[in-house]
Amino acid sequence: MSKLFLVGTGPGAIDWLTPHARNAIGEATDIVGYGLYLEMLAPLVADKQHHTLPLGAEVGRARVALNLAANGNVTALLSSGDIGIYAMATLVFELLNEPEEPGFNSAWLDVEIEVIPGISAMQAASSRVGAMLGHDFCTISLSDLLTPWQTIEQRIHAAGQGDFVVSFYNPVSKKRDWQLNHARDILLTYRPASTPVVLGRQLTRDDEHVRIITLGELDAKDVDMFTLVSVGNRETRCVTTPQQQWAYTPRGYAAKLEGAQ
Amino acid sequence: MSKLFLVGTGPGAIDWLTPHARNAIGEATDIVGYGLYLEMLAPLVADKQHHTLPLGAEVGRARVALNLAANGNVTALLSSGDIGIYAMATLVFELLNEPEEPGFNSAWLDVEIEVIPGISAMQAASSRVGAMLGHDFCTISLSDLLTPWQTIEQRIHAAGQGDFVVSFYNPVSKKRDWQLNHARDILLTYRPASTPVVLGRQLTRDDEHVRIITLGELDAKDVDMFTLVSVGNRETRCVTTPQQQWAYTPRGYAAKLEGAQ
Repeated sequence: MSKLFLVGTGPGAIDWLTPHARNAIGEATDIVGYGLYLEMLAPLVADKQHHTLPLGAEVGRARVALNLAANGNVTALLSSGDIGIYAMATLVFELLNEPEEPGFNSAWLDVEIEVIPGISAMQAASSRVGAMLGHDFCTISLSDLLTPWQTIEQRIHAAGQGDFVVSFYNPVSKKRDWQLNHARDILLTYRPASTPVVLGRQLTRDDEHVRIITLGELDAKDVDMFTLVSVGNRETRCVTTPQQQWAYTPRGYAAKLEGAQ
Repeated sequence: MSKLFLVGTGPGAIDWLTPHARNAIGEATDIVGYGLYLEMLAPLVADKQHHTLPLGAEVGRARVALNLAANGNVTALLSSGDIGIYAMATLVFELLNEPEEPGFNSAWLDVEIEVIPGISAMQAASSRVGAMLGHDFCTISLSDLLTPWQTIEQRIHAAGQGDFVVSFYNPVSKKRDWQLNHARDILLTYRPASTPVVLGRQLTRDDEHVRIITLGELDAKDVDMFTLVSVGNRETRCVTTPQQQWAYTPRGYAAKLEGAQ
């Protein structure tokens, strides 16, 4: 059998991994991933062949996984979060659809592929503060490596016009530090400075740190590449209980509770 | 202890439920949910007190859960999918923030609340066909019960302008049948009729049925309330292998594979 599992392993903690994903990893003899993520899954992958490539070598990792599977090894390609959201799954299908590219191997087409989703960072961040994603939302990657900044900017405007809750993936990196503040300034033309914002860093991991701030306070200097940023819409509210401060986005506009029955 | 777990149970199949969620259900003595979902989780909830309310009685269900927890019962309020996405979690925080509403109970404020996300339908649908959500996307509920249609329409236009992949939740119901075709017509002014669309019905359940069609073919008569509809963006592509037809949204615009290294 020629089989490739594309597995999302969730934000980090091993009990956020579904049994569906765990079983796929269990079946595999060969694991392809980024070294750091594999360390967190050590108990599950100890007896497997590991094929680690550095962060950034995404295309290489997808090719290695396809080649292993095409050679008859049951293979699991892992990404943290949901492998279908800003992650490795789409790269595998891009490779399958590029027969003219150097390195294309027609045996890839016979590999049986199964994609297994995981909990994405925006879901973990939203759950830690309550229900930021309670109504219509969007996700925008601020990485302009593969998407022109003009396209990203247009998308932030669209998110503002549509009053979507916005989750920013890849908000900053070592080489990119100005995009997040630019995005904030665009959103401030559509929603008030008091709009709740969630910063979720290293979610579900030992050094998890989650904060609710306001859109006016959002600054790239407080955000790193391990942080998920979610900006509320015009209806997002905070409520403070003796336990903690919560943020939630109601299910509608000026909804009366009675009307929801 | 006064504890309330808000638990997302995933799209249906029990092995898509994280251990994190399963442990919370295990701790609870009292389970509040919609009857049909509880049946699917029967092995996990057999020895618990069940408090089932019909579909539609969402506010009542949130109140029952808060009251049970305030009375000292460790309680789990369940929603299928992700309880934070178009589901019960936000209602609980709306109730906590409405002290003037009839039925408000100040003991609710002392309840320790933990929100536990689950895999949402859009993630399941995307994974079944490959990687529809591989780049920026949004979700829009087509229910105009709590959101005016004008607001929803504006949001569909924004999704078109921003070229987001769009997942429609609540695409139709017994009483609502025209909104989906209207939404399709709006999106057709921004993207071609050949744009791939995924219809995912009863995902992960015995009668699961997933199809890839085109935006031009999308028709509300082929969709019911158990169906998730995801519409690709202008870059979403299909690739057919001997195994099946796949749909994926590349990570960028006119991205060269080499550039991704």
